[in-house]
Amino acid sequence: MKKDDKQRAVVLLSGGLDSATVLAMARARGVDCYALSFRYGQRHSHELAAAKVVAETMGVKRHLILDLDFRAMGGSALTADIDVPKDRDTARMEDEIPITYVPARNIVFLSIALGWAETLHARQIHIGVNAMDYSGYPDCRPDFIDAFQAMANQGTKAGVEGHPFTIHTPLMQMTKARIIAEGIRLGVDYAMTHSCYDPAVDGLACGCCDSCLIRKKGFAEAGVPDPTKYMK
Amino acid sequence: MKKDDKQRAVVLLSGGLDSATVLAMARARGVDCYALSFRYGQRHSHELAAAKVVAETMGVKRHLILDLDFRAMGGSALTADIDVPKDRDTARMEDEIPITYVPARNIVFLSIALGWAETLHARQIHIGVNAMDYSGYPDCRPDFIDAFQAMANQGTKAGVEGHPFTIHTPLMQMTKARIIAEGIRLGVDYAMTHSCYDPAVDGLACGCCDSCLIRKKGFAEAGVPDPTKYMK
Repeated sequence: MKKDDKQRAVVLLSGGLDSATVLAMARARGVDCYALSFRYGQRHSHELAAAKVVAETMGVKRHLILDLDFRAMGGSALTADIDVPKDRDTARMEDEIPITYVPARNIVFLSIALGWAETLHARQIHIGVNAMDYSGYPDCRPDFIDAFQAMANQGTKAGVEGHPFTIHTPLMQMTKARIIAEGIRLGVDYAMTHSCYDPAVDGLACGCCDSCLIRKKGFAEAGVPDPTKYMK
Repeated sequence: MKKDDKQRAVVLLSGGLDSATVLAMARARGVDCYALSFRYGQRHSHELAAAKVVAETMGVKRHLILDLDFRAMGGSALTADIDVPKDRDTARMEDEIPITYVPARNIVFLSIALGWAETLHARQIHIGVNAMDYSGYPDCRPDFIDAFQAMANQGTKAGVEGHPFTIHTPLMQMTKARIIAEGIRLGVDYAMTHSCYDPAVDGLACGCCDSCLIRKKGFAEAGVPDPTKYMK
């Protein structure tokens, strides 16, 4: 292992607000970042377009966009022909696993990030999961992250040879408002980022899917102007 | 969960000898099998061609071949421009992690199998890993499989809702000779399967890569004629 390997990370970058903040936090600590995004059959391409702009703007070493056809497996409103729910009460989102849940999505994303990290001799993987606003997603909880890290260090050459991987989840216990405040402090331009699950053809955010509602609420609570253009 | 869900499985199918045997063992127990293969930038397509024949012959419910470009990440003799080692001593293969190791490959394959299984309401994933002949691969050991299963049940909706997944590794403690004997007993035609890491353009097995050497030795020890055509 080279001397500086500990400061090299694969950062999962969706093009959304959370992962842009994670990238800014890693860059602020001087970490060399390798951004990883997926073309996984999302309903729209605005998220990936945003990821490209974020990666370029924030000075990543490399941005890899990997094709992965989750649609072939079906099963989620984010990839399949199922309606995205609108105008739900944000307070009630925590009670259930939403139909926007993509089976094992974060598991697959983290696994591929792990493979790339091992090839790059990076020992860190950063992911913007959050147990506060998305507690309904099983793959956004600390217990899952711990289990993934343990598995990663059993199932890789680097792990079993004593160069363990760590999964960094700096947003895990942060409210959306705090995430936004931290990003603003680090100079993130959130106008670059895209959160909406169901945007118009031109990329305009719908303003009423779960993701838009959480985003709006976050900016309001942070007391920061929301740069997003919403349809409503 | 439907009544028969417990007898539905995703089976990772490479086109090789091991996974064909795993599929035969599951079918013999009356399990409905959904075969999953990957076009992951292998050096050749003979493995996938073999997987298709095996899936058709053995009556799977569906055979899904997913594209996944591991080459974009580099790092292994199986996908990148690194020479496959030849004529090694099979007794010494166990001592080290070979350069044919693809970083996190089984982790990624199992993760995608898990996502598909969850969508299908299948609770079993079958994989032909083996700790005897491939002890050099960290992702072929029982400790890794246990860790993966624990992670899977923390990170999926089905897992946290009390419908746990089990990872079946029926070949884990079997020698290659025993695997072959079991497959022959179940009627597997091993002429369909492909093991060689570095075949000729027409698919002819090289006869001297690690995989060919282990295969030859297995047939010899099982006392069964090897239907494979080797170059040498």
